[in-house]
Amino acid sequence: MYGLIGKMKAAAGQRDALIAILLDGIDAMPGCLSYVVARDPKDADAIWISEVWDSQGSHRASLALPSVQAAIAKAKPIIASFEEHHETEPVGGHGLGG
Amino acid sequence: MYGLIGKMKAAAGQRDALIAILLDGIDAMPGCLSYVVARDPKDADAIWISEVWDSQGSHRASLALPSVQAAIAKAKPIIASFEEHHETEPVGGHGLGG
Repeated sequence: MYGLIGKMKAAAGQRDALIAILLDGIDAMPGCLSYVVARDPKDADAIWISEVWDSQGSHRASLALPSVQAAIAKAKPIIASFEEHHETEPVGGHGLGG
Repeated sequence: MYGLIGKMKAAAGQRDALIAILLDGIDAMPGCLSYVVARDPKDADAIWISEVWDSQGSHRASLALPSVQAAIAKAKPIIASFEEHHETEPVGGHGLGG
């Protein structure tokens, strides 16, 4: 499995709009086992995203999906910065339904 | 929902043993929607854990479960340090099966 844990900041006041775009874009991504979008309770602009994919290839392929491309285009103007970006190797757990 | 994203380090050479204990302890935790254990590919001792719970109360209650207490007791001697610990407010996504 292939994982990503990242934190990004929305432009001021745009966090909910950014979250809505992110959640809208993640339907029907082949190989996506988990994709969780969360607010940071300590930072009004920050969003955490935790992803698990069956392989790095599936994640890479997802970036070319029309739905994901559309979400990226809509999200870009309201993303202020990327704060953290960690690749991981998920081993197991709960909630990896596929 | 209530989330946690954390990074811990195992004692040298003990990462796989620690992961096995963590995965063993997470069965049947009421209110746990997602619990992913991952290796850090850049640090041979580091483990990432991403959790989503239906509430902070469920997470707190899980710490009193006999299976979790047993896992904590077994894990403690081979945990070297906690590197990161972030509370989050998950909003939605994929793989929150419950």
